Amino acid sequence: MIGIGAGDPDHLTFQAAKAIAAADVFLLVDKGEAKHDLAGLRHDLIAQHGRRPYRIVEARDPERDRTAAAYTEAVEDWRSRRARIYRSFIEDELKDGQTGAFLVWGDPGVYDSTLAALDEVDAEFECEVIPGISSVSALTARHRVGLTQVGRPVHITTGRRLAAEGATADDVVVMLDAHCSFAEAGDGFRIYWGAYLGTPDEILIEGPVGEVADEIRAVRAEARARKGWIMDTYLLRREPPARG
Amino acid sequence: MIGIGAGDPDHLTFQAAKAIAAADVFLLVDKGEAKHDLAGLRHDLIAQHGRRPYRIVEARDPERDRTAAAYTEAVEDWRSRRARIYRSFIEDELKDGQTGAFLVWGDPGVYDSTLAALDEVDAEFECEVIPGISSVSALTARHRVGLTQVGRPVHITTGRRLAAEGATADDVVVMLDAHCSFAEAGDGFRIYWGAYLGTPDEILIEGPVGEVADEIRAVRAEARARKGWIMDTYLLRREPPARG
Ligand SMILES: C[S@@+](CC[C@H](N)C(=O)[O-])C[C@H]1O[C@@H](n2cnc3c(N)ncnc32)[C@H](O)[C@@H]1O
Ligand SMILES: C[S@@+](CC[C@H](N)C(=O)[O-])C[C@H]1O[C@@H](n2cnc3c(N)ncnc32)[C@H](O)[C@@H]1O
Repeated sequence: MIGIGAGDPDHLTFQAAKAIAAADVFLLVDKGEAKHDLAGLRHDLIAQHGRRPYRIVEARDPERDRTAAAYTEAVEDWRSRRARIYRSFIEDELKDGQTGAFLVWGDPGVYDSTLAALDEVDAEFECEVIPGISSVSALTARHRVGLTQVGRPVHITTGRRLAAEGATADDVVVMLDAHCSFAEAGDGFRIYWGAYLGTPDEILIEGPVGEVADEIRAVRAEARARKGWIMDTYLLRREPPARG
Repeated sequence: MIGIGAGDPDHLTFQAAKAIAAADVFLLVDKGEAKHDLAGLRHDLIAQHGRRPYRIVEARDPERDRTAAAYTEAVEDWRSRRARIYRSFIEDELKDGQTGAFLVWGDPGVYDSTLAALDEVDAEFECEVIPGISSVSALTARHRVGLTQVGRPVHITTGRRLAAEGATADDVVVMLDAHCSFAEAGDGFRIYWGAYLGTPDEILIEGPVGEVADEIRAVRAEARARKGWIMDTYLLRREPPARG
């Protein structure tokens, strides 16, 4: 399981490049969506770092019920179907002693279900996970801000949670937010927002939430319409009280 | 500012390697401690990826008052003195148009004061931040667990905070913990602990906190005594209630 970073081909680590070179077969799961840029990066990385002969097996992602109110159940159901894809990949596509590889967006630990789906696979195999640059690291690097402040915690959460709970800390990173829930954080926050991080389409907007919320909403809607998909992440940081 | 990953030289990204190749002068700040392995990695990476002619400037880290009860103030004071080192590096060591580089452990966004110290520097320069593999990503990859669970938040905090507040979520990552504060999390947590992650000395221990706490304490004390330093990080995850 190879973390490939969050958009920039140069996010790839040497460890990940070596793992790509060591693989016999790659499984690419087609999201059946317009995210061609994302699939393209995987193909490019394999072409660049793979060592021939290798094979690429393509599978179709099980549809996920995105309208379901019960988000967790929908994901769990999706995960079981994903586990069946992995199982048949391992049993039908890999010979004994061969190495199969999944290229995982960002860091495999951050809001990614591949590892959990692999845990459900009832087959004999060894698994190694190669860390990758997450979109969180990409976001803070591009804005040149720390993820954490001295001695203080940071919470990483989802758009749904933020909408339901508001900001639960002075520093909150929000992912998987389809609804610009940053306005729900409450007053006094600064936002560091980034879309398509690491790619040529990257957009960065920063400022007090109250001042830039409308701009982010407009820019996001326009970009999403133009490209057919969007991935965005943001850090909310409570502004320090004015001194003096 | 170049994130170099959390211990494994192969954590380096291609982006970081290119940034090292593009630098004219490197600033290495000597911690004045026994952390020779850490300084060694920086020298090795420069030797491997730097493009001659380059220069290395070594500075001595300002001592930090680690006994101070007022942790934040001690860090802020240390940061101002660090900013003076950066300022003289920029003004005295870099000619116009030259590029200086700092090699930052892990990801520059995660509990690192370099960026905040650089913000205090009153000189004219441009700054780019290259993300790196954090010890958090290294930890979860090596334990083959997700940092986040489906639709749920994760809190990243310090050992001091954990000791003061207990676990504030079902998933908590703890860094900068000199006192094995995991016992303070409360009952029902599983721990994924890692020390010297990414290095040949790496140690991994996993299990219910109640069952492995003593083992971690003993292993940690022994390793720390033997090597003269230790860096460890852990994820606490609340165990799901038994089904059935
Ligand atoms: C299913 S999660 C996967 C996260 C990934 N494992 C990582 O480490 O970044 C997808 C979410 O990650 C964030 N994301 C991933 N790549 C991004 C990028 N290049 N720019 C902005 N956000 C991104 C968005 O919040 C998106 O909704
Ligand atoms: C000052 S912080 C710097 C963190 C760094 N910027 C990162 O991204 O990992 C130092 C803390 O990071 C953690 N840490 C850094 N490297 C580590 C490693 N190789 N193994 C275990 N923990 C590590 C430890 O909790 C340590 O106390």
